[in-house]
Amino acid sequence: MKYEPINFLEKFSKFDEVYSPRVIAEMNDYQFKLARVMGDFVWHDHPDTDEVFIVVEGSLDIEFRDGKVSLQAGEMYVIPRGVEHKPTAESECKIMLVEPQGVVNTGDAGGELTAHANVWV
Amino acid sequence: MKYEPINFLEKFSKFDEVYSPRVIAEMNDYQFKLARVMGDFVWHDHPDTDEVFIVVEGSLDIEFRDGKVSLQAGEMYVIPRGVEHKPTAESECKIMLVEPQGVVNTGDAGGELTAHANVWV
Repeated sequence: MKYEPINFLEKFSKFDEVYSPRVIAEMNDYQFKLARVMGDFVWHDHPDTDEVFIVVEGSLDIEFRDGKVSLQAGEMYVIPRGVEHKPTAESECKIMLVEPQGVVNTGDAGGELTAHANVWV
Repeated sequence: MKYEPINFLEKFSKFDEVYSPRVIAEMNDYQFKLARVMGDFVWHDHPDTDEVFIVVEGSLDIEFRDGKVSLQAGEMYVIPRGVEHKPTAESECKIMLVEPQGVVNTGDAGGELTAHANVWV
């Protein structure tokens, strides 16, 4: 039988939208999502779950109310549940998110950047 | 406050052992682990959980009883629960595993390659 790897850049080549995460894999009830980040996202938190950011290409800042973390390709960060954060990138950054099924990108904040939570690519 | 990214290669620089996963992060009750793979691992499965392999550097084959998947850096694969698999690498490969806390690397197979499940780096 033939098994196919999941290639991050090949998946990224299939969509251009920023702040519009696409699911590429599921493990138990968790999802791996790819997203393009450019400019400022909204302040939000996820009250019920931690959230993992992994940078695939480019640079990402994640601002907190009392500081920030700067991530490059090959780096990750775990946002603890309930902690307000705002992702931001000066130029387009490719990231992977890991979080439970059904997590909405804007958390409780809502607004126009809210994306459908379960779009696969 | 100062927040520090988790840098994969910096973490790899802190251990040399192959088939000896090191935890680098937790998200809810899941762990992210780095491991060096070289040569053949043992056939095993994890009856209670899926398992994610992400290649950070190098090439990894994961054999199944009826085929295999070949992964390069920037690629991932989800091993479904209960599916027998055997990782193998011709030259040293750096990978990241994502799985629930407490998963043992050799699953139900045991043997001398079994590593402690909760060593951080």
